[in-house]
Amino acid sequence: MAAEAVVTMDGWCMLHDSRVFDWASWKVANEKERTEAVAEFKELISKWEAVEEQKNGSQSIYKVVGNKADLIFIFLRPTMDVLEEIQRELNKSKIGDYLIPGYSYVSIVEKTMHNPMDEGRDRELNSKVEALLKPILPKWEHACFYPMARRRWKDANWFAIDKAERTRLLYEHGMTGRKYAGKVKEIISGSIGLDEWEWGVTLFAHDPLQFKKIVYEMRFDEVTSKYAEFGDFLVGNYLPKDDVDTYFSL
Amino acid sequence: MAAEAVVTMDGWCMLHDSRVFDWASWKVANEKERTEAVAEFKELISKWEAVEEQKNGSQSIYKVVGNKADLIFIFLRPTMDVLEEIQRELNKSKIGDYLIPGYSYVSIVEKTMHNPMDEGRDRELNSKVEALLKPILPKWEHACFYPMARRRWKDANWFAIDKAERTRLLYEHGMTGRKYAGKVKEIISGSIGLDEWEWGVTLFAHDPLQFKKIVYEMRFDEVTSKYAEFGDFLVGNYLPKDDVDTYFSL
Amino acid sequence: MAAEAVVTMDGWCMLHDSRVFDWASWKVANEKERTEAVAEFKELISKWEAVEEQKNGSQSIYKVVGNKADLIFIFLRPTMDVLEEIQRELNKSKIGDYLIPGYSYVSIVEKTMHNPMDEGRDRELNSKVEALLKPILPKWEHACFYPMARRRWKDANWFAIDKAERTRLLYEHGMTGRKYAGKVKEIISGSIGLDEWEWGVTLFAHDPLQFKKIVYEMRFDEVTSKYAEFGDFLVGNYLPKDDVDTYFSL
Amino acid sequence: MAAEAVVTMDGWCMLHDSRVFDWASWKVANEKERTEAVAEFKELISKWEAVEEQKNGSQSIYKVVGNKADLIFIFLRPTMDVLEEIQRELNKSKIGDYLIPGYSYVSIVEKTMHNPMDEGRDRELNSKVEALLKPILPKWEHACFYPMARRRWKDANWFAIDKAERTRLLYEHGMTGRKYAGKVKEIISGSIGLDEWEWGVTLFAHDPLQFKKIVYEMRFDEVTSKYAEFGDFLVGNYLPKDDVDTYFSL
Amino acid sequence: MAAEAVVTMDGWCMLHDSRVFDWASWKVANEKERTEAVAEFKELISKWEAVEEQKNGSQSIYKVVGNKADLIFIFLRPTMDVLEEIQRELNKSKIGDYLIPGYSYVSIVEKTMHNPMDEGRDRELNSKVEALLKPILPKWEHACFYPMARRRWKDANWFAIDKAERTRLLYEHGMTGRKYAGKVKEIISGSIGLDEWEWGVTLFAHDPLQFKKIVYEMRFDEVTSKYAEFGDFLVGNYLPKDDVDTYFSL
Repeated sequence: MAAEAVVTMDGWCMLHDSRVFDWASWKVANEKERTEAVAEFKELISKWEAVEEQKNGSQSIYKVVGNKADLIFIFLRPTMDVLEEIQRELNKSKIGDYLIPGYSYVSIVEKTMHNPMDEGRDRELNSKVEALLKPILPKWEHACFYPMARRRWKDANWFAIDKAERTRLLYEHGMTGRKYAGKVKEIISGSIGLDEWEWGVTLFAHDPLQFKKIVYEMRFDEVTSKYAEFGDFLVGNYLPKDDVDTYFSL
Repeated sequence: MAAEAVVTMDGWCMLHDSRVFDWASWKVANEKERTEAVAEFKELISKWEAVEEQKNGSQSIYKVVGNKADLIFIFLRPTMDVLEEIQRELNKSKIGDYLIPGYSYVSIVEKTMHNPMDEGRDRELNSKVEALLKPILPKWEHACFYPMARRRWKDANWFAIDKAERTRLLYEHGMTGRKYAGKVKEIISGSIGLDEWEWGVTLFAHDPLQFKKIVYEMRFDEVTSKYAEFGDFLVGNYLPKDDVDTYFSL
Repeated sequence: MAAEAVVTMDGWCMLHDSRVFDWASWKVANEKERTEAVAEFKELISKWEAVEEQKNGSQSIYKVVGNKADLIFIFLRPTMDVLEEIQRELNKSKIGDYLIPGYSYVSIVEKTMHNPMDEGRDRELNSKVEALLKPILPKWEHACFYPMARRRWKDANWFAIDKAERTRLLYEHGMTGRKYAGKVKEIISGSIGLDEWEWGVTLFAHDPLQFKKIVYEMRFDEVTSKYAEFGDFLVGNYLPKDDVDTYFSL
Repeated sequence: MAAEAVVTMDGWCMLHDSRVFDWASWKVANEKERTEAVAEFKELISKWEAVEEQKNGSQSIYKVVGNKADLIFIFLRPTMDVLEEIQRELNKSKIGDYLIPGYSYVSIVEKTMHNPMDEGRDRELNSKVEALLKPILPKWEHACFYPMARRRWKDANWFAIDKAERTRLLYEHGMTGRKYAGKVKEIISGSIGLDEWEWGVTLFAHDPLQFKKIVYEMRFDEVTSKYAEFGDFLVGNYLPKDDVDTYFSL
Repeated sequence: MAAEAVVTMDGWCMLHDSRVFDWASWKVANEKERTEAVAEFKELISKWEAVEEQKNGSQSIYKVVGNKADLIFIFLRPTMDVLEEIQRELNKSKIGDYLIPGYSYVSIVEKTMHNPMDEGRDRELNSKVEALLKPILPKWEHACFYPMARRRWKDANWFAIDKAERTRLLYEHGMTGRKYAGKVKEIISGSIGLDEWEWGVTLFAHDPLQFKKIVYEMRFDEVTSKYAEFGDFLVGNYLPKDDVDTYFSL
């Protein structure tokens, strides 16, 4: 018999969009082209910031450490349509010629429903839950992203065990998370039916060491050691709009 | 001893053809070239639409969210020959220079045969089944594609269990699907012997959240939690012909 | 103790050579260059056809459906030296500039030896076996290629079970194959020690639906459901020399 | 119940940054460009060396054997911010146009805490531990890098076994390591939450045969044979600043 | 408890360096450039041959069958430093612009030590063993390369079983190998700590069918069917210096 399915509350659509910057071509461009491209890019950021101010979405840009990408953009918007439009606008912009698309991840901000009475009220819940489902990204110094899935193994099948057991395991997991209050903020987004893994996890910290601390400690939680599979991890440093000129200057 | 094999009814050949758009080269092209390329592309779409009007095939174009592709074309045609010709015509067209081929998937629309008396009457069945095997793609706002396979594990071997057990598991699975009537439409196509996985699943919805809802809920079905393996998921927003100019305009 | 090893009879060397056609560069070439490239390519084909007429080899070209490749060449020749020379001659030819090498597969046509007395007489057997080991490719409308291997799992180790059990399983498998007589032709080539998987399977059919039918039905055979692992599948439509001009014309 | 989590002491942030050198473009550059690029690169190295002299970081450059990369840079710095700035400065430099980014790895130097009393004193410990957490890379002739993880299998789950058992296994492992004192130096850095695997291992030796000797012998340690998974291995020869001119000269 | 580790005797460092030849760019080069590039390449080969004559190393070049590469160079030298210098010299040479680096493999020729008394005498043994550890590559018509590893599975863990059992399994394996005396020559090189797999196997034969015969027969050996994992296989035809002009001529 099938296990009882989880009911989720779902919020904004989320896009992690990493880009490799083509420095060699950038240097070949003349100074006027570069200046215009950066100015136009900053206008785009301002436009995005206005959306965030109106609480119709949120975004941040991070400088990725290592060679997986140069920049990663994280966008939250009410619809998938807007996310695609943002990408297209970026690609059509002048700086878009140098921002070669890399790894990306599509998901929707998700909270597991504890009270089945709430079912069907997705996206219309009270303000507290709304803040969780439509989160404004904290402008902390560092972000970390990784996708994950739950195992469906013979003796460790997350989708076949009792709901009570799942609740117990997740409660224990939550207790580990609480130790990092104030040090790490977390956004969970669901990607089943949308992208390669089952969930995306986006972490924010003032000190990137805390990413290592929390993920390492959680690896000993039973829900992780027995049921979790992880994709690749990306770590980045926050790029405020004021540093955009410096970032691209030669 | 071998398990009893499934008998299928098979319809149109199906091609999922994703393309990365080369925006940087597109911008370098002059306006005349771009205008001609878009006009020629729209003529191609009109030609395809005429085929759909005559019920000799169907197709839709979607704007992909994320960096896996910019556009995905879904084509249904009576033969593999026509599918290859469509691709070649697209590649030879002006806009083809900018539509860099990406991930693709080849399959044939498939229904499992419940009445063995129907065997051998493939593609010649009554009008109701015909509509299922030769489906006109709904022009809903969003589409989702993913390939999947059934496990052949020691204790979970789909191709070795009783036909009755397979039927029971699929019936339960169908019950989950029914809950999404009106919210999600589904086309199942078989790719055993044709492409990397065993089936392609193409979903359509007005709200992409429903892709996440249905695939998540189905993950708790025994047929999924125990026997299913999934490839990558692609999600896109419908691109009607009327929006083609806007899509490519700089 | 080790299981009894299989003895094989081995024939022609086989190369599956897939190519992505660079349509964008092809369009930039002037008409004279294109005409010369196609004419030279057709001379190459004629040269290959002469080899086939003299029964010193065989080959066919297929238009691949989907984006894995545009064309796949299948070559059979007496030696690996000749296969490499053919590839090099193609690469040196004018059209070679546009035929970007893609996935390939190296193998040798193989028959399992049932009579151990025949051992050591490889490549020198009677005319019937000779026809199987040195096959002239049927010019049927469609071809399908996939590589495969046998599992070496704890409880399903093909290379550790009794020879009698292997024979029983393969006999059953052969019975499934017989149902497709006249619909599907098959060439098995061994690639252990030569390429990534253990065998290559090349199928030919008038209707590509038969590729799906036979591979699907065989998946229920015990030898497949328990012991087989599959690589990727490539499907193509036959390209006769007379259609070469049309194929490349703009 | 969850196993007791490990407590770590953590030091400098570490970046392994491999680059493929674009020799073909380098040859096309004129001699003046090449001379300036090398001179600027050596200034960068001098700047990095000054940081090392002040014990604010460390780095070395290695010439990679094989085609995975031409050069690998290993950087240790107090923060992720500085690591990203170093990469960006290198990419913006003249030689950066030819140093195509390849495989990279992000981690933080890590020591397992044996005395729980030390917890919370990360990065502020006594001078001996400080030397381990903020290591100056030995300028030995050869380096080897590989990432690794611990298994989370049903009967071999590193994160689910007793802490005492983990300590026993690691002690035995340490005994093997001691045999190579004077022959191999090792830096362990943690990458859980930062990169794809769980740890990075960087080895240094005068004779690269010792990399093979130690890793081979350790493979028989129970902690390895039962619990370890390895990524790819990169081996390189030390490139001192004095040899930089020769390295790039044509 | 840990199993007894193997003691090895180790010889020359070994590099398998495969290259894709850029025929399209080669054709664009003018005849003078091509002539000079080939002449310089032949001087390099002569230089390498002089090293082989003095028994300070060995090498051969093979024309690869299929699209994995065009050429594969196999180099044996006393140190990793010399291997890297050879690669760099090749990359800096004129023909290097067209020899795009592909798959490579780094290892050290290895013999398992049967007499523990020999331990520590690596590279200094008597002349018979010396010939095995510092092998001059036979200039036979065909070569085959593949990497492999031993399983570390729960019930099939090569690094956890008794040394006596390992010896028994390898003895049986050696018996299979002996059947191919005169038909196949083999060089085993260890890559633990150096490259992705654990060993590299390089085979030489007059008839490439023997690669298939020996690797197929050995697959039934218990040491293989139960404990072996294989990487990809590359097969090539010997390219003597006298054929270099012909190889590159247009």
